Order: sequence, then C-alpha cells, then structure tokens
Amino acid sequence: MKGILYIIGMGPGDPELITKKAETLLGTISTIAYFSKKNERGHARSIADLYLQTPKTELRFEYPITTEIPHQSQHYKQTLQEFYDQSASAIQEQLDRHTDVALLCEGDPLLYGSAIYILERLQSIYRIITVPGISAMNGCWNAAQMPIVRENETLTIIPATLPLDSLIHQLRNSNACIIMKIGRNFQKVQNALKQAGLFDQALYIEKGTQPQERILPLKALSEQAAPYFSLILIAGHRESS
Amino acid sequence: MKGILYIIGMGPGDPELITKKAETLLGTISTIAYFSKKNERGHARSIADLYLQTPKTELRFEYPITTEIPHQSQHYKQTLQEFYDQSASAIQEQLDRHTDVALLCEGDPLLYGSAIYILERLQSIYRIITVPGISAMNGCWNAAQMPIVRENETLTIIPATLPLDSLIHQLRNSNACIIMKIGRNFQKVQNALKQAGLFDQALYIEKGTQPQERILPLKALSEQAAPYFSLILIAGHRESS
Repeated sequence: MKGILYIIGMGPGDPELITKKAETLLGTISTIAYFSKKNERGHARSIADLYLQTPKTELRFEYPITTEIPHQSQHYKQTLQEFYDQSASAIQEQLDRHTDVALLCEGDPLLYGSAIYILERLQSIYRIITVPGISAMNGCWNAAQMPIVRENETLTIIPATLPLDSLIHQLRNSNACIIMKIGRNFQKVQNALKQAGLFDQALYIEKGTQPQERILPLKALSEQAAPYFSLILIAGHRESS
Repeated sequence: MKGILYIIGMGPGDPELITKKAETLLGTISTIAYFSKKNERGHARSIADLYLQTPKTELRFEYPITTEIPHQSQHYKQTLQEFYDQSASAIQEQLDRHTDVALLCEGDPLLYGSAIYILERLQSIYRIITVPGISAMNGCWNAAQMPIVRENETLTIIPATLPLDSLIHQLRNSNACIIMKIGRNFQKVQNALKQAGLFDQALYIEKGTQPQERILPLKALSEQAAPYFSLILIAGHRESS
C-alpha cells in the first residue's frame, strides 16, 4: 500500500475559512508539502499555522523564478517544468515509503493552482484526494458584501496576463468579472477597464479576508502598483439597470 | 443594540466542507433561517444537521413558486419580490428583538444565492456579516479532479437559462466554462455545446460531493433530463493543445 496524496485547499487567508475536512486532515497527516516564493514562507503554509500543533515533516518547494523573466519564454516554461518534476518526485518518494502527504494550496487547488502540475504528474500512479477550498474571489466578494451574480448573469474570471485587446473583449462580454494576477499588469488592466466603460464600477481588494485587508473603489486607489494577489471585482448587476 | 445577521455559506453538500467559521457560528447562534422548496427540507438546512445538536428557533422560507411559471413574467417577478419582502421582515423581527440570526445558504451566499435579496433589503439598517462557502462548482471540479483553469485561461460561469444564441456565444468565448441551472434547459444546453464544438469534452456532475454523486462524460449520460442542481464542466486546457 502506497501513501495517499491529499491536495488540500486552504482558503483565501483567514484561517477560520478552511474547511472541517482540511482541519481533520491537517491533524492526522504528518508530512506536509507546499509551494512558496523565494524569501517567503508561503501563503498556504502560513494559513496552516493554527492547525499544526504537532511537528510535521515539511517539504517546501521554492519557485525558482516568478516574475524575473517573461512567462512566454521557453526558458521560463522549461525551468518551471523541471521544478514541478522535482517537486512531484519529492512527494513520490514519501508516497513510496507508505507515507501520506498533504499538499497545502492557497485558495482552491484546481483554480489556477500549482497543485494542478503535481496532480497531472502523479494521478495515474497514486491515490489522490482533492479537497476544495474557498477561493480568493469568494473570500473577496463576501468581504466586500458584493452580490457577484444573480439570475441569468454570467461571471468571467480573467487573468490580467492576457493582452489588452483580449482583456477589453472579455470585460465587454460578461455581466460580472473578476480580474486576477494583477501585479505588473496593473496599468494595462486600468486601461482595459476604461475602454470597456467599467472603470468607475470596479472594486479593488488587496489581501482579502486577511488582517491587512483593503477594500476600495479602484478609482479611489492612489497607488499606481498593485500586488500580484490583489483582485478587481465588477458585479453583474449594474445600479443603472 | 440590534441583533446581527450572519449570512453563512454552507458549501456544496458534504457537511465536512463547511468552514470552521460556519461551524463556530452554528454552535452559538440560536435562531436559524433558510430557504426551501415546497415539500423539501432545503439543501442548506440538511447540510447543517450535523452541527445543530441543540434545538434552534427555525425560520423556514418556502419558495411560493419555482419552475411552474416563466421566469420572465411579471407575475413571477412580483411573487418573488413579495416573498423576499416577507422573508426579510421575518428576519428583521428577530433582529429588532436583539436576536442574532444565521441565514444558511447552500454553496456561496453571493453567487446566485437567494441571500442576495435579503442582504439588499437589510444591509442599510442592520449589521450583517457574510461568510463565504465552497460553491457547487468548486466542489464539483475537485470531486472530478479536473483542473479547471491554469495560466492565462479564462473561466466563465454560464446560467443555462440564457437563450441558445447567448449560450453558444459564451461557450465559444471562454477557455473553461461551467453551465449552471440546467433542469428544463437540458436540451438547449446540449444543442449549444454541440454547436460550440464542446459536447464531447463536457463533464456532467449531479449532486457533487454528496453520497449520491454522479460524475460522467455528458455524452455517456443516457437520460434526457437533468436536475436543476446538476452542473456541466468544461476544462480550460484541451488535450489537443
């Protein structure tokens, strides 16, 4: 019997927003794995703090690169492929020793999560159980008490990494929108929102559900930069309609 | 001091998928409210069973109509407006008596939830706290272990209540799609998927995360009817690409 890999959504930031299932698993599995950026602890790992009273074996996977080189480049793709290969191998080593592993993921594991690349590499070989988590966007629209969609409205989740034309097209095409992965794309996103006529209705949320949470209309934001894990929300229901 | 209204997401069905925050609130608030269809207990109320050891005051709001008359009709709209007015008044009565109320919602409260209409009616008068929940779609793509979006893919949530042309347009416009509110729109949805060239890739999920969960390719489904709370998922990443 090989070990089981549990891929666990840890929610948007507030530790009280993890599921009962995640809590139970964190209490019983003695080996945890997680991704983190250089010089950072990792968001998923930080959320877990409250639930890791007993010491665990920890596998920390540090991203070799994040925003230093263009995402479209062959070098970027290859570097990340190798990184995910190595991370999967490290988990595999534990599973082969009959040790269960809990891979902790911020938000929901299968919504833009790095866990996707681990799942793909291991799902044909090992038993894997995925546990959904509250995604950042769910956490944010509840923190803002913004009804995001009702009745027959559509909702589109749009990565800010798309080209300007695609951003404008997507914004115009859906009732409600969530813009993710803002970071260095902030100027482009503001431009797209203005061209789609949605700038004045856009809500900006930074570190949603965390102690440093900031919620304000985008037009009231004075900075001309935004962290990668900020979100912009546009509700489906417009006041004017 | 008036009572506080807690609007609580109860997740997709598996009681272990409620948040720690929801569990804590269910343990302390003695008055609960929830929506349910005629002759049904209500999905949110059923999920709560495990967490309601002590008796509660229960406000059950039974939808006066669901699918009997067209949703576009003035009669439908007016009937529902009055229903939400009455439901909000019943909650208001408790809050005015300094009693906190927990409004239990299936999935996430602000994603197509009836709680939106209570929030709108009471948010300028009372203190309201909203607690996000795992939405049905998050529960479903994890149950199916289907990575829904990665990198710069878009995800659109599409209500099946839209006209055929809009369904086709939305399906063609996004990498990943979730089709909700299927029910009597099942034939139209299948037609739209075929015209958008996505029928063969569509995954059908019924009662996701619940004991009666069914997950199968849409093309393998023999019935020509689907319950309202079934979902169709199309992953952003296509095998061919």
